[in-house]
Amino acid sequence: MVERRKPIPVEEAIERVMKFAKKGEVEKMPLAKAYGRHLGEAVLATHDVPPFNKSPYDGFAIRAQDSREANLQNPVEFHVVEEIGAGTVAKRDLGPFEAIRIMTGAQMPVGGDAVVMLELTKEFEKNGEKYISIKRSFQEGDNISFQGEDAAKGTTLVEKGTKITPGVTALLATFGYAEVAVAKKPNVGVYSTGTELLDVSQKLEPGKIRNSNGPMICAQIERSGGVPLYFGSLVDDFDQCYQAVKEALEKVDVLITTGGVSVGDYDYLPAIYEKLGAEVLFNKVAMRPGSVTTVAQLDGKLLFGLSGNPSACYVGFELFVHPILKTFLGSEKPHKEIVHATLMADFPKPNPFTRFVRTRITQKEGRFVVEPSGLDKSNVVSSLAFANGLMKLPGGTRGFASGDQVDVILLEDYHGVY
Amino acid sequence: MVERRKPIPVEEAIERVMKFAKKGEVEKMPLAKAYGRHLGEAVLATHDVPPFNKSPYDGFAIRAQDSREANLQNPVEFHVVEEIGAGTVAKRDLGPFEAIRIMTGAQMPVGGDAVVMLELTKEFEKNGEKYISIKRSFQEGDNISFQGEDAAKGTTLVEKGTKITPGVTALLATFGYAEVAVAKKPNVGVYSTGTELLDVSQKLEPGKIRNSNGPMICAQIERSGGVPLYFGSLVDDFDQCYQAVKEALEKVDVLITTGGVSVGDYDYLPAIYEKLGAEVLFNKVAMRPGSVTTVAQLDGKLLFGLSGNPSACYVGFELFVHPILKTFLGSEKPHKEIVHATLMADFPKPNPFTRFVRTRITQKEGRFVVEPSGLDKSNVVSSLAFANGLMKLPGGTRGFASGDQVDVILLEDYHGVY
Repeated sequence: MVERRKPIPVEEAIERVMKFAKKGEVEKMPLAKAYGRHLGEAVLATHDVPPFNKSPYDGFAIRAQDSREANLQNPVEFHVVEEIGAGTVAKRDLGPFEAIRIMTGAQMPVGGDAVVMLELTKEFEKNGEKYISIKRSFQEGDNISFQGEDAAKGTTLVEKGTKITPGVTALLATFGYAEVAVAKKPNVGVYSTGTELLDVSQKLEPGKIRNSNGPMICAQIERSGGVPLYFGSLVDDFDQCYQAVKEALEKVDVLITTGGVSVGDYDYLPAIYEKLGAEVLFNKVAMRPGSVTTVAQLDGKLLFGLSGNPSACYVGFELFVHPILKTFLGSEKPHKEIVHATLMADFPKPNPFTRFVRTRITQKEGRFVVEPSGLDKSNVVSSLAFANGLMKLPGGTRGFASGDQVDVILLEDYHGVY
Repeated sequence: MVERRKPIPVEEAIERVMKFAKKGEVEKMPLAKAYGRHLGEAVLATHDVPPFNKSPYDGFAIRAQDSREANLQNPVEFHVVEEIGAGTVAKRDLGPFEAIRIMTGAQMPVGGDAVVMLELTKEFEKNGEKYISIKRSFQEGDNISFQGEDAAKGTTLVEKGTKITPGVTALLATFGYAEVAVAKKPNVGVYSTGTELLDVSQKLEPGKIRNSNGPMICAQIERSGGVPLYFGSLVDDFDQCYQAVKEALEKVDVLITTGGVSVGDYDYLPAIYEKLGAEVLFNKVAMRPGSVTTVAQLDGKLLFGLSGNPSACYVGFELFVHPILKTFLGSEKPHKEIVHATLMADFPKPNPFTRFVRTRITQKEGRFVVEPSGLDKSNVVSSLAFANGLMKLPGGTRGFASGDQVDVILLEDYHGVY
C-alpha cells in the first residue's frame, strides 16, 4: 500500500531535528594532538602579552632623552655597558649615555626606554671600551613591545567551541595550555541498507551496485568532526535490520542508516522506528533530492534515515546531521555557511520543492560564482567529487537564469574555526 | 659585525624554493582511512555508471508503447507478472500489457522501456491476479537511468593529486577501490631555537617566553598535509645546534627551524648552513614580516630558516613551506588560493616592502571583504587565532584606503580538493 506522507518545509525539518541537538562532553588532550579539535573551554590570556617590555629588534637599548641632540652632523656617543641575549635579563640599570646591547625578544633593561636598531649604529672602541654612535634622535617607547600591549592578563582570547587552528595553537602554547580541554568527538554509527549493495571489494554482479553511501557518509562524518563507526550493510530482512539498529543505537551518539526509507515494499525503516518506539520527527521533506529523508528520536538519541540515493544521502547528511555533530562539538555556528553567488547557467525547470544542487563555487574578481554540474546527468558522477557547494533553489519559482543571485551552502569552511 | 643582505622580491624567493619541489612516493591505504589524503593515482570509471539500465523510482516497468492510449477517461490495465527488488533481476521478459513491479535502483527487465511511479498507479486484483491501471501515457526511456549515462567505463573521473573529499570517497567506493593509492605524507622536522624559549608546560620566568612557534608550525604542517616531527627547542650554542640540525636532516623530508636567522650575535643558522655545506637560496626577502626568512638546500633537501617572530614564522611557512608540502603530495595547485577582496580599513602607512597582514576575510552579498586586525598592535594575539587570510599589500605604494581592492591569500581551502 502506498503511504501518503505530508512533506514539511526544509527549515521546519531542520528546526525539529535541532530541538534534539546537545553538547557533548569535554576531554583533555596534549597540545600536540589538539589541532583540528574544538575547544572545550575558552582560551584565556594567563599573563600579559608580552609579559614584559621587550625589544622587537636586534640593537641597543638607550634612554631616548640622551639621543635628543643627535643628527647627521652631530652623532651622539653611547658607552656599551652590557649585552643581553633573548632569555637573559640585564644585571644593571641603564644610566645616562649608556647603551645595552639587546637581542630580538629580550627584556628591556631598567632605565631603557627606546631601542636603536643595529643597522642605525656605528660601533667603535675607545680606551678599550665598546661604544656606539647614532645620527638621529629617538622618542620614548620607540621600538619597544610593551608589556600587555598584545593582550592583558585574564582576557578571553578564543571562545569555547572554536576549532583549533594553527593560530589558536600558538595562543594555547603562549599561555601554557600543555593540556587542552577539547570537545569529545561524537560517535556516529552507520548502517547501509539494501540487498542490491555489494561491498567495495566485491565484483559487480547483475542488478547490484557497490555500496558508496557507507564510505561517503563516513568521510562526511569525519569532515564534520565526528568518529564514524561503520557497521556494514544490512540485507532487506526486517528482523535482522531491527535487531541491528537496536543494538547499534546503544553504542553511538547518533545513528545513520542509508536507504530503506522510501515507500517501497523493502523499505523497513519506518516499521523499525515504530517497533523501537521511536518518535518520527518527519518522514517527508519538501526538497529534492532527499524528500524521503526521515528522522526519528528515541530517548533523545537521533536516528537519521537518509535516502539510499547518493545525492539525497549526501544532502540529507549536510542539512540535518552536520549541525547536530557541530553542536555536539560545542560550535556556536553549527550550520554550514550560506554565501551569495552569481549563477552561471540557466535552470528553466520549475519545481514545487526546494532543490539542492551540487555545485562548484569559485571566486572571480572578488565575487562568488557558481557553476552547477549536478543537474547535468552526464556529469553526475564526477560532480560529486568536485562539488564544494550545495546551491539552494527555493521551490515554487519559475526557474532560474544565468546571472541570478542564488544561495550556496559551502561544504568546506574557509574560516577554519567552525 | 653587521652583515649587509640583499633582499629579493617575494615571487623570486618562492621561485627559488620551488626549483627544489619534488613529488613524494605513493602508498596503499584502505578506503576507510583515505579521507583527507591526496590521491596517488587517478580515479577511473572501472565500469559504466549505472552498470545497467535501472529504475530511479519505486514503480512498475512497462513497455511505453502499451500506455499510448492511456488518459484520465481511459485508464489502461497491465498484468503484474513479477516483482523485482533492488539487487535481484527479473526472471522473465516483459510482454505486451505486462508490468513488473520494480524497486528503486533495480535493473530494468528485458523488454521494459519505461517506469511508472508507484503513486501514478492504481493496484487491484482480477481473477486472483495482480493488476495496475494507469491514466497517462509514457515515452520510451521515461524514468530510466541508462547504463553509462553517468560515466562511461575508462573515463578519468578524478586526477592524481586531488584531495580525497567525501565525494571522491563515494567515487572510489563505486569503482571498487577498496585499497587506495595515496601520496605519502612528507615528514617535516621542526626545531625551535632561542635560549629565551620555555616549554609550553613551564612557568614563565623573567626575560623568557613560552615557545609558541613550535606547536604553531606543527599545526600548520598538519593543515598542509604533512607529518610534524617536533624535535624540541635548541639553546643558543653553535655546536649543539649544528649537531642537532645535521642529525635531524637525515630523518626528514623537509627541515624547519624557527629563529636564529637574524643578524644578531646568537643567530647561528647562517653559520650552520655554511658548515653543513648547504647552498643558501636566499637570506633576505623584500617582505614584512619575515624579511630574514632564509632557505637553504643540501643535496636537494630543503632547510627552512623561519624567523623567530611568530607572525613572520607563520607567513614564512605559508609562502615557502606549504607549496613544497603540497607538491610532495602531488597537488596540481600547491600554492594557497589568492582571492580579490574589498578592504574595509585604511592603511595609510607606505612601505617599501610587500606586506602580508593577517586578516579575517568574510563574504557580504556575494563579495569578499577583508577586515585586517594584524596591523592593530592591540589585537595581535587573538588576530592570529582568527586569521583566515593573509592580505598581500604590494610594496612601493602610498598606502591603501578603505574600499580598495586587495589580494588575500586564503589560509583554508573552500574547494576541499587542493
